[in-house]
Amino acid sequence: MTFKVDFKVRDYECDVQGIVNNSVYFNYLEHARHEFLHAQGINFAKLAEDKINLVVLRSEMDYKSSLRPGDAFYVVVKLERVSRLKFGFRQTVYRKADQKVMLQALVIGTALNEKGRPFLLAEIDKLFE
Amino acid sequence: MTFKVDFKVRDYECDVQGIVNNSVYFNYLEHARHEFLHAQGINFAKLAEDKINLVVLRSEMDYKSSLRPGDAFYVVVKLERVSRLKFGFRQTVYRKADQKVMLQALVIGTALNEKGRPFLLAEIDKLFE
Amino acid sequence: MTFKVDFKVRDYECDVQGIVNNSVYFNYLEHARHEFLHAQGINFAKLAEDKINLVVLRSEMDYKSSLRPGDAFYVVVKLERVSRLKFGFRQTVYRKADQKVMLQALVIGTALNEKGRPFLLAEIDKLFE
Amino acid sequence: MTFKVDFKVRDYECDVQGIVNNSVYFNYLEHARHEFLHAQGINFAKLAEDKINLVVLRSEMDYKSSLRPGDAFYVVVKLERVSRLKFGFRQTVYRKADQKVMLQALVIGTALNEKGRPFLLAEIDKLFE
Repeated sequence: MTFKVDFKVRDYECDVQGIVNNSVYFNYLEHARHEFLHAQGINFAKLAEDKINLVVLRSEMDYKSSLRPGDAFYVVVKLERVSRLKFGFRQTVYRKADQKVMLQALVIGTALNEKGRPFLLAEIDKLFE
Repeated sequence: MTFKVDFKVRDYECDVQGIVNNSVYFNYLEHARHEFLHAQGINFAKLAEDKINLVVLRSEMDYKSSLRPGDAFYVVVKLERVSRLKFGFRQTVYRKADQKVMLQALVIGTALNEKGRPFLLAEIDKLFE
Repeated sequence: MTFKVDFKVRDYECDVQGIVNNSVYFNYLEHARHEFLHAQGINFAKLAEDKINLVVLRSEMDYKSSLRPGDAFYVVVKLERVSRLKFGFRQTVYRKADQKVMLQALVIGTALNEKGRPFLLAEIDKLFE
Repeated sequence: MTFKVDFKVRDYECDVQGIVNNSVYFNYLEHARHEFLHAQGINFAKLAEDKINLVVLRSEMDYKSSLRPGDAFYVVVKLERVSRLKFGFRQTVYRKADQKVMLQALVIGTALNEKGRPFLLAEIDKLFE
């Protein structure tokens, strides 16, 4: 299952080096994951209201090159199963102008129930069928 | 070489789940690294003005537990050499109330010269003597 | 002169109240202003590289209602002259679903030269002809 | 009633102009207001959990000068009654090195009950006795 979200760098996302600040890629990746989940009928914010929290357990990010003010780019999201309760998102950031890979990431998460215990969210389990 | 920076969670750093947003840990870790470097006489912002950019190449982060509004915490920073041109920061986030480890991270970086080429910044090289 | 930029609320922009954090509207408004200027051939980031800084002197914001996760909205930008050296942006945030006004703002700015002195940027002066 | 919160500029809060981004002052002011309220026994995040939301209705900000990476500063908060249901925070940002006023703000807010209606929060009413 592959999914793609389009973005454009906003000036306020850039820091004193004149490039997108490292932490902002995390925002991009989160938004792309949530859009992906939303397209599958899974609403992060609504789940949070119901005390079901999708959380990140681990992230690995490889910064290949830096996005700059005004750059158009997109984030590709691929979902994979890591274990019964854990799922992984392979995410890649491509600069639109030349399809250059700017960042590669693996983000591993799970769902927590009201008591903060990992559990198998049926809506996510269904994605692997 | 170990270094410690104190923080307190600010409400605006928390998201709809009522916990610190994942991307914000990246801000915390960056600030702790820059304070560490500053204490060694290395000024990230001044270097950027001189077109010398300290950049992150890779990050690995393990989220152990979630900080909440008002939590006091600190970030411990340890520097290690990864290769001639690459250095790594082992960073751990501890909640102050109970010394619980909230997050563990490895952040690998290098210095880029005006042309964007990795080079050995003397001030950083000196830290490993 | 009227200009419009489309947005969609991202989950990370929302806080513990489940709504877009007040400070984030400032990001939205800034991005809309910069897109407006860009469409007129004025590049905020490039100017900054040349030590010419467009700065905000005063902002007035009236929060009418709150954007929520996933809301589509747009920002309308109107430019007006405040004085010889100052220009004002009237900005309104509309929720797309029902055209409801969510926020109204007046942002007054000027251009600073290399020495930090206000001056008349020809490219902006031309916008009032 | 006067209250003071100490801060230090973090590099990630600065933008391509090498100064603190305008939107970030909003974060500073919010944190100072919440610390002020907290000192009076009013917990913004806890109230939000109980569906009572303290919200901003209007903000006026005058940017006098720009904070830079590493600057130490403090925010002074004064509370005043605007009407029966509205309260105002006069907030001033001072740079520590020279006590220079960097920003002056008036932020007007109210409390909303579960239904989103303004109401008189007893804990806030008490602050004006």
